[in-house]
Amino acid sequence: MEEKLIDAIVQQVMDKVGNGAAAAPAAKSFANPGMTEFVGTAFGDTIGIVIANVDKAVREKMGLDAKYRSIGILSARTGAGPQILAADEAVKATNTEIVSIQLPRDTKAGAGHGSLIIFGAEEVSDARRAIEVALKDLGRTFGDVYANDAGHVELQYTARASFACNKAFGAPVGKAFGLCVGAPAGIGVLMVDAAVKSADVEMIGYLGPTTGLSYTNETVGLFSGDAGAVRQAILTAREVGVRLLGSLGTAPACLGVPYI
Amino acid sequence: MEEKLIDAIVQQVMDKVGNGAAAAPAAKSFANPGMTEFVGTAFGDTIGIVIANVDKAVREKMGLDAKYRSIGILSARTGAGPQILAADEAVKATNTEIVSIQLPRDTKAGAGHGSLIIFGAEEVSDARRAIEVALKDLGRTFGDVYANDAGHVELQYTARASFACNKAFGAPVGKAFGLCVGAPAGIGVLMVDAAVKSADVEMIGYLGPTTGLSYTNETVGLFSGDAGAVRQAILTAREVGVRLLGSLGTAPACLGVPYI
Amino acid sequence: MEEKLIDAIVQQVMDKVGNGAAAAPAAKSFANPGMTEFVGTAFGDTIGIVIANVDKAVREKMGLDAKYRSIGILSARTGAGPQILAADEAVKATNTEIVSIQLPRDTKAGAGHGSLIIFGAEEVSDARRAIEVALKDLGRTFGDVYANDAGHVELQYTARASFACNKAFGAPVGKAFGLCVGAPAGIGVLMVDAAVKSADVEMIGYLGPTTGLSYTNETVGLFSGDAGAVRQAILTAREVGVRLLGSLGTAPACLGVPYI
Repeated sequence: MEEKLIDAIVQQVMDKVGNGAAAAPAAKSFANPGMTEFVGTAFGDTIGIVIANVDKAVREKMGLDAKYRSIGILSARTGAGPQILAADEAVKATNTEIVSIQLPRDTKAGAGHGSLIIFGAEEVSDARRAIEVALKDLGRTFGDVYANDAGHVELQYTARASFACNKAFGAPVGKAFGLCVGAPAGIGVLMVDAAVKSADVEMIGYLGPTTGLSYTNETVGLFSGDAGAVRQAILTAREVGVRLLGSLGTAPACLGVPYI
Repeated sequence: MEEKLIDAIVQQVMDKVGNGAAAAPAAKSFANPGMTEFVGTAFGDTIGIVIANVDKAVREKMGLDAKYRSIGILSARTGAGPQILAADEAVKATNTEIVSIQLPRDTKAGAGHGSLIIFGAEEVSDARRAIEVALKDLGRTFGDVYANDAGHVELQYTARASFACNKAFGAPVGKAFGLCVGAPAGIGVLMVDAAVKSADVEMIGYLGPTTGLSYTNETVGLFSGDAGAVRQAILTAREVGVRLLGSLGTAPACLGVPYI
Repeated sequence: MEEKLIDAIVQQVMDKVGNGAAAAPAAKSFANPGMTEFVGTAFGDTIGIVIANVDKAVREKMGLDAKYRSIGILSARTGAGPQILAADEAVKATNTEIVSIQLPRDTKAGAGHGSLIIFGAEEVSDARRAIEVALKDLGRTFGDVYANDAGHVELQYTARASFACNKAFGAPVGKAFGLCVGAPAGIGVLMVDAAVKSADVEMIGYLGPTTGLSYTNETVGLFSGDAGAVRQAILTAREVGVRLLGSLGTAPACLGVPYI
């Protein structure tokens, strides 16, 4: 009887809680919606889609090269750096091209960007493969994102930048490239300064909320150069950024497994 | 006794839950603040206001035509399409003109726009009537908005576009007009492509986060043409969009009663 | 036994609630991260930082005058007006200069701006002092911010504007200056109109979501002139704004102690 009583009470309380406060979200589906265009989803409300034959009118508005009839779409509510670095790997691994990268002001209530990346391909199988590679690689590229309620710190690094990093950040193709992000933006200023002081790197970009970013509350530093130096600069930025961000709240939590 | 025991436990749990987690929001007032300028409120934190005699300095900064001394204001935290379509009906029904439409990046933590729409009128009674019509029509125009935690899908359709749709979207006045919105933006890309393939419509606009939108995480398609064709295109976009959005979370909930 | 039963049930319910809904946030630290660059934090997720010797590459990208080797950084997730007015006092009180002011679209899920303000100084002690003054003054300048779930109303006033108000708003240095903000933006339109009608002030700016602001859902009025008149205009805007905002939700709560 006691068992049943407990169950009854639990039910009653859950009902009350469910009304007044936050309703427990229903289990996430992540189910395939049964569409051939759907490729998959990943962290950050990221969705991957392909279109085998893009309509002519859409193609023109997109500025898609006539030789591509297929596109791959990588779109996310949260994250630009992780998706761009993942797209960079996808471009290296497949017969595709980056058509466009647009960065909305998003991350839901956060301080940063979402992303919309379009790949062009002659065959839909290439487009699909690129999206598959990118979705999978997001598990890695979210590895050096640290966040708490007050903001976030993000680091990215590649020993050999490809066409996504080139398109988004002007990174020289084939050279080591790294970026650091701090939010709120003041944290990023110190991260960038510490990074360039710590290693012999070339700063190829210094972006602020209204100077290169989409009104996000971030400062971003972009670095090119010798692989060891770029990596060192990024690691320094990480240490400074995570410590500073902690002063505004709880210890920043790593969203994945650090890869740099 | 068991009854009292249950109540005691429920109370204790509610107290605990109330502290740690979300407090139940206080009852919304929606009371008339006792100002003649106040017209009413509606879904989406939408407020309607009139000013009988706009100050000369404000009038100049607004670029308000000299013949209008009164304005109506429709302003919302959440929603641009619903407010613009409602304003379109208001302009048809009253002796007013659309002075300006500005779309902030808002929807609170969502992926889309808020809106600020100004009507000009010679008489304050006309301005008030326009705002009343628009506020009431929002119950309809939120009918084809579908949302879950990951994003939203929105559809709008009118058999005869008027001056609000013309000002905001370049829709030809007097012709059928429809729009589809998908967020995150990648969903919108597929919706637009499916829409134009499904019916013989003219795509008069294809907007992305940084190409026509206010850094929202949306892709928007704008369609003009034969009424039946435009409606068909929008219905196709809806089916595709709602299914795709569901893959990122729970089944998207309709915010009203579908009207298309 | 009854006691133990209650505890068991409470525990079981808490576990359930804890999973489905929001976990209680861990205690905020606000601890000094042990870095010489860190100055402090304040309301609005505001952080104050100094850099004694800014790197040459960063200095160039910032457009920092060659005579300044040190900078002070005031950066916030929530608030632009409060930080700019506090920076205005800091500039008056110290031997520093405002290098740049950038306003991201932020306030977390709110309708307004965050801020990134950079001070230049010849000596790091000056930069530090400026940030200390600004951080402390935020306790005052958040005094006339009123908010509820639907939006916010903000008022600022100074009898003598200095270089931060000049840089951000074009306020004449040495003259009285005031600003009013209403969100959602329609509320701000009425506030501005009421303000200019109530006193003989010069409206030096009228800013909207896409006309001078960073896509926030605000309308902002900027006023210069006789001290008494500017103050009167701001007080009128406050009364109108707070009443209107209340119509969209609960009575707006004052975030501090009104100072105007």
